[in-house]
Amino acid sequence: MPHLLQLDSSISGAGSKSRQLTAAFADAWRARGPEHTVTVRDLAADPLPHLLDNELHWPPHLRAPGATPPADVEAVQAAVIAELLSADVLLVAAPLYNYSLPSTLKVWVDHVHVPGVTTPFDGSAQPLAGRPAVVVSTAGATYDVGSPTADWDHGVPVLDIVLGTAFGMAVSVVKATRTLAGRLEGLAPERVRADEEFAAARERLQELAATLG
Amino acid sequence: MPHLLQLDSSISGAGSKSRQLTAAFADAWRARGPEHTVTVRDLAADPLPHLLDNELHWPPHLRAPGATPPADVEAVQAAVIAELLSADVLLVAAPLYNYSLPSTLKVWVDHVHVPGVTTPFDGSAQPLAGRPAVVVSTAGATYDVGSPTADWDHGVPVLDIVLGTAFGMAVSVVKATRTLAGRLEGLAPERVRADEEFAAARERLQELAATLG
Repeated sequence: MPHLLQLDSSISGAGSKSRQLTAAFADAWRARGPEHTVTVRDLAADPLPHLLDNELHWPPHLRAPGATPPADVEAVQAAVIAELLSADVLLVAAPLYNYSLPSTLKVWVDHVHVPGVTTPFDGSAQPLAGRPAVVVSTAGATYDVGSPTADWDHGVPVLDIVLGTAFGMAVSVVKATRTLAGRLEGLAPERVRADEEFAAARERLQELAATLG
Repeated sequence: MPHLLQLDSSISGAGSKSRQLTAAFADAWRARGPEHTVTVRDLAADPLPHLLDNELHWPPHLRAPGATPPADVEAVQAAVIAELLSADVLLVAAPLYNYSLPSTLKVWVDHVHVPGVTTPFDGSAQPLAGRPAVVVSTAGATYDVGSPTADWDHGVPVLDIVLGTAFGMAVSVVKATRTLAGRLEGLAPERVRADEEFAAARERLQELAATLG
């Protein structure tokens, strides 16, 4: 039973490009047959709690002596980690908000990045090693290589480090930029390219959904 | 009446290095006299709400027709922006959590980064231009120039873009790394340097507090 975990985080509702793209992936995944199941976690509709106790960045055996992090948040965190570990393929919508991850997606990262559990520590295992992770990166403006804002995307690199390097997942990043071109007159000259990038991203995601897992 | 806005965001309580460093700055600021006032906003103790309506990224005159973002969050956002605009000096604790900003600090960035209000849009003003912003950057591990993790800090660059480029503030970044050296055996060889960096950061912050604003 190949299982997909789909994370959405856009706050733009039905008009969201990242939601349209993750839906295209999930539809293509489901089209492979009823054994291709999906769990959708909508981090904007149902935000996880901030991780407000430093000891929750560590598993029990690595916590400071006497640490008693809040049990309710610890239980949520355990469920979120179990959900990730049970996925054969991870699909993450990562719209760029103010040059970094949506705050709700950052909270998810904090929940799942735990040394000794999802990332190796002192020789422990790397349970997600080799599993596919597909990052759907959307951005309102332009971040073209060679342009002054080429290095202004500080969202995708965090997912590359955490999912790729720390968890050992096989990360594919599919990008669609200029998503504000339809709204902002200043980006009007970018509208054709925005549409082209979006169409190419959707096609690439459909290809990945048909083959991964 | 020179006024300081101090933002804390660490989840490590009294042991927090970033909190110790912002306290050192604030103490030196207050030592200049009773007219040197301080507002402390503790983003971990009292988190702001996630900005879950895309139209709150825009001021009323730039919103989509018919947009009705939640009034309660809009009121909070207006207060947070007014608080920032009333500060002569901004002090931001930015501990690095999972290679990026704390989720609660990211929420604050989303609240205050509003085109046409704090950052110019179509010729509007840049009300914070030239004001000092001091970023206290702490990080558990090592991010030395030339090392494999030199580019893994995706927290400070976001503040540089938003506070510096977008708002036009005069940003000073004061760093203390290796803050986990006291806790992790693997970082034990870094303990002396961790202490040196922390002491140097505290001294630099005290100098800045004695002269800025």
